[in-house]
Amino acid sequence: MNLYTSKTEAAAKRAFEAAERGEYETVVHLIDHSFNTEDCDENGNSLLHYAVKGKNQKLVEYLVERCNMDPTWANQSMCTPYDLAAGSPMEEYFKRICGFSLEESYRNPVLRGMHPDPSIVRVGEDYYMVHSSFLFFPCIPISHSRDLIHWKTIGYAVTDEIWAKEFLGDLEGGRGFWAPDISFSNGRFYICATLRNNDDAPYIQTQMITSSTHPEGPYETPFIHNLLGIDPSLFTDEDGKRYMLINRGARIVEISQDGKQLLSKPELIWYGHSGHAPEGPHLIKKDGYYYCFLAEGGTGKGHMITVARSRRLFGPYENCPYNPIMHQWDEMGAIQCCGHGMPVETPDGRWFMVYLSSRFINGAWGMLGRETCLDEIIWTADGWPVVNKRKGPSYLERVPFPKMYEKPAAVNTKEVWLSPRTRDRKRVWTGEDGTLWIRGDGFDLCSKKCNSMLLKFQPDFSFAAEFEMWIPEEEKSEFTSDAGVTLYYDENTYIKFGVTKNQIFVTEYVDNAYVRTEKKDFSFEGRVLFRVETDGLNRTFLLNNKILWRWTDVTSICSEGLTKGKRFTGAAYGVYVNGSNLLCWRQHSEI
Amino acid sequence: MNLYTSKTEAAAKRAFEAAERGEYETVVHLIDHSFNTEDCDENGNSLLHYAVKGKNQKLVEYLVERCNMDPTWANQSMCTPYDLAAGSPMEEYFKRICGFSLEESYRNPVLRGMHPDPSIVRVGEDYYMVHSSFLFFPCIPISHSRDLIHWKTIGYAVTDEIWAKEFLGDLEGGRGFWAPDISFSNGRFYICATLRNNDDAPYIQTQMITSSTHPEGPYETPFIHNLLGIDPSLFTDEDGKRYMLINRGARIVEISQDGKQLLSKPELIWYGHSGHAPEGPHLIKKDGYYYCFLAEGGTGKGHMITVARSRRLFGPYENCPYNPIMHQWDEMGAIQCCGHGMPVETPDGRWFMVYLSSRFINGAWGMLGRETCLDEIIWTADGWPVVNKRKGPSYLERVPFPKMYEKPAAVNTKEVWLSPRTRDRKRVWTGEDGTLWIRGDGFDLCSKKCNSMLLKFQPDFSFAAEFEMWIPEEEKSEFTSDAGVTLYYDENTYIKFGVTKNQIFVTEYVDNAYVRTEKKDFSFEGRVLFRVETDGLNRTFLLNNKILWRWTDVTSICSEGLTKGKRFTGAAYGVYVNGSNLLCWRQHSEI
Repeated sequence: MNLYTSKTEAAAKRAFEAAERGEYETVVHLIDHSFNTEDCDENGNSLLHYAVKGKNQKLVEYLVERCNMDPTWANQSMCTPYDLAAGSPMEEYFKRICGFSLEESYRNPVLRGMHPDPSIVRVGEDYYMVHSSFLFFPCIPISHSRDLIHWKTIGYAVTDEIWAKEFLGDLEGGRGFWAPDISFSNGRFYICATLRNNDDAPYIQTQMITSSTHPEGPYETPFIHNLLGIDPSLFTDEDGKRYMLINRGARIVEISQDGKQLLSKPELIWYGHSGHAPEGPHLIKKDGYYYCFLAEGGTGKGHMITVARSRRLFGPYENCPYNPIMHQWDEMGAIQCCGHGMPVETPDGRWFMVYLSSRFINGAWGMLGRETCLDEIIWTADGWPVVNKRKGPSYLERVPFPKMYEKPAAVNTKEVWLSPRTRDRKRVWTGEDGTLWIRGDGFDLCSKKCNSMLLKFQPDFSFAAEFEMWIPEEEKSEFTSDAGVTLYYDENTYIKFGVTKNQIFVTEYVDNAYVRTEKKDFSFEGRVLFRVETDGLNRTFLLNNKILWRWTDVTSICSEGLTKGKRFTGAAYGVYVNGSNLLCWRQHSEI
Repeated sequence: MNLYTSKTEAAAKRAFEAAERGEYETVVHLIDHSFNTEDCDENGNSLLHYAVKGKNQKLVEYLVERCNMDPTWANQSMCTPYDLAAGSPMEEYFKRICGFSLEESYRNPVLRGMHPDPSIVRVGEDYYMVHSSFLFFPCIPISHSRDLIHWKTIGYAVTDEIWAKEFLGDLEGGRGFWAPDISFSNGRFYICATLRNNDDAPYIQTQMITSSTHPEGPYETPFIHNLLGIDPSLFTDEDGKRYMLINRGARIVEISQDGKQLLSKPELIWYGHSGHAPEGPHLIKKDGYYYCFLAEGGTGKGHMITVARSRRLFGPYENCPYNPIMHQWDEMGAIQCCGHGMPVETPDGRWFMVYLSSRFINGAWGMLGRETCLDEIIWTADGWPVVNKRKGPSYLERVPFPKMYEKPAAVNTKEVWLSPRTRDRKRVWTGEDGTLWIRGDGFDLCSKKCNSMLLKFQPDFSFAAEFEMWIPEEEKSEFTSDAGVTLYYDENTYIKFGVTKNQIFVTEYVDNAYVRTEKKDFSFEGRVLFRVETDGLNRTFLLNNKILWRWTDVTSICSEGLTKGKRFTGAAYGVYVNGSNLLCWRQHSEI
């Protein structure tokens, strides 16, 4: 779809208005002679959205059956024509056309907020997925699902704060663990990932590998290979030999069974389809072919998933004629930048792809970083995998398992608060009752040495976070810190909404300075209620249920908010202490 | 491929230089860690071009077999790595990889210079193609081939200058016959086309249909339907019913056997894949499916060919999951804007697509208008047609018939000189010996009433045209005209290189005025030799073998040279008279 232009606006508006009034003849005439059905309005509403509102079923059927318009195409608010038809007779029509009811549907992204570079493995009826964690500790979250739609974090690949301090402690924002891979071999779960160091390190890219008999961990102490490249993944051939794949392109290295020895030099088996930034290699074997999947085009709007195949592991590989097999061709699509995916087979022999995507506020601000989508892979009659019928990401699709699993396996999900780089557990911990405890480490959030924060990633573009903060009885020192709530991207860009002993303030740090500050006199008596309401670029800051400030242009905590270093993560929120005091928080549930 | 950017230039230049020196290790290392193989230089030379020059076969094999680089990808001068390998041992390697020798190859575009909107039909072993002629007379050229590569104009659908004067005489440049279709039914060749009138006409779009028992004609007097739409084509169903397809999308109208009666209202069967400017509908039936082909995206860089199918003529049609089945994805491709195609089956059951494309000087100036390419259609195992394996246009491919037909059937090809709109045969004619005769009609070339020209389209970006001009003995009047050679786009933009009685001049007309003129004193003694050498935007003007002027920026006779009216044709050249004198020319052969 395309936003109408100054040239096509008149025809588009006439068509939309006629459709909304249910005027079949007028709309058909406009389609015959002037209106391009790709044109949508500035909110991404298509002609079909308007026609559903107009309740003319004959027109709706004309647009779907003659004009190839998609009832599951979402506008910028992720609302589809099918959604608009809910409760009307057209809902039944769409159910027949789409092959599923709204109750049997799921929506992308299935994992919202920062979930980049997914890798997936199935063991029995259980699916496990890992995502990049960059500098955040604990590192590399492991999620579990039994239906591919509902996911829960069950553990982390790296939970040793001493190790993390040594390996992550000096890294700049955006470095750390990139693009992990999870696999299962001989009763063990293997996780490998790139550990991206600072640009002045002896090895700017190294590869970590660890394993555990339990998917949630605990995992072994990470083993590091000084091997250049990113996006490692493991593949075990039918002869039992084990390989690590790594970019650029798909290069393979034979490895020992435990992954701790490299038994060969990397050898390129396939460089990719486009010639642009080939990465994220994954290999599967199916029906006598090795299928090599790549992420190409960079992680922006050119992102894509491609595939090639060969009868022999070392190639030569045949480029799939349908490449890219996943790409967002649609400039007005609410989900953009689709790529970096990995296939997984269900017990009944169907295949699905998990892959990353981005959504943007006003088409520009990727506040949430990269999220995770799911779409079905169809194997063509000539043996090629294509994702979601090459339509790009789906917005509304049939759930993989019509009988949804209601109770995912019980897992320990206590540890969900993150800190940059490492954590001093004597200073920062979460209580059994969910209380967050932080004693300031004396550093402000702009310091790489500051760990006195507990963070979560923004769950979506709109939400509210409310924290009650108090000075616990255990605290003997006088209150000399500033402490409160933070909206955090990295040490280069964040917002603090906090109190000092006699002020309440909100302040924004960008690049190397606090660039905007608002404050009021306030007497902190040891307990306050912070609330931040988030809606796109808007933030409303409330103290004790009273609105203090409204900001309407919060862009600094987006990846696009600053050009400095590596900005591949997403906006987080949480609590912090700057100073040396001990404070407690309890989060009221997200809204 | 992409031109390297300021960010990637350093890695690209290092890779190119190393490849040209044959340094395998250096190139492989750069590919492993920094160089994107999509990067080419400003002349479109890829790393593979450089590697072939470097004569390191191991490196060439690495780039082809591991990096998916294409030996048949052309640089901006249409030179491929395979061409560069000619005569070296690598030629044998490329022959094995490509599956054909250079001698067994053809190159796109197969028809160069203005050949837009091809439509094709096969009868026995003979292929016939028609192209848009817009305002030029005779109208709608019909070409013949027996090998799909070598084509010869054998006739025109409209040769009646009286009819042409009535229907085309008042039209503005760029109007006239758009997107004709040729088909064969019950022993007759049918040609239909849109007759695009001026914007203030009662019907701005009408449909012409004519037929003949002979492909070269003569054709019946055109019959005009006052039916809005463009790009008509004919389809005869298995039950013998006949239909006209017309845009937007594919709308069908039942027609009488002779095409002169419309038996139904237009009904949309498929609007297309993209929703953008769906046109050029063509229908075939194969293996129980109706396949509907469309041109979409507009005739610029977004152009594409798409397809859908149905078991029933009236649909609903299923969108091909591999759409677009032809599109130029490659921004640095020497052939751009690929779309508007039509499939044809060979006697041995293979399928090919003829389609239009554009080439650009400096990436901007489409001097030649739209040309015609040919590529093979492969039917996928699931029954979808894809063109050239979805790689976009080919530059160098295996000829359809390895044993080429050396002698196309003899045809009358005398009439190859064109005039705008119509021709007054008493004033403008070609002699049996090839001499061109023109008596001026008193109008300058900027008048829509001026027909005193004989033109051909530029055959390529580089060529020379040489004309000897003289006053014939038949001419009794004193020489008061200006006459000579013209480089012509339409009445809004052209160049005259001519003589008056006492001057030689070159002058350029743009929009509504002569904007640039150079002249010298010269005494026209009744006979001169004009020569214009064309190389991209350069023109060298010679009189009697002496260089008079060089222009280096001739853009006005490109479609992009002016924003006015409809500019869908290409640059032509030829001879003219402005005034009332009678003159003769003989063209020395094109170089």
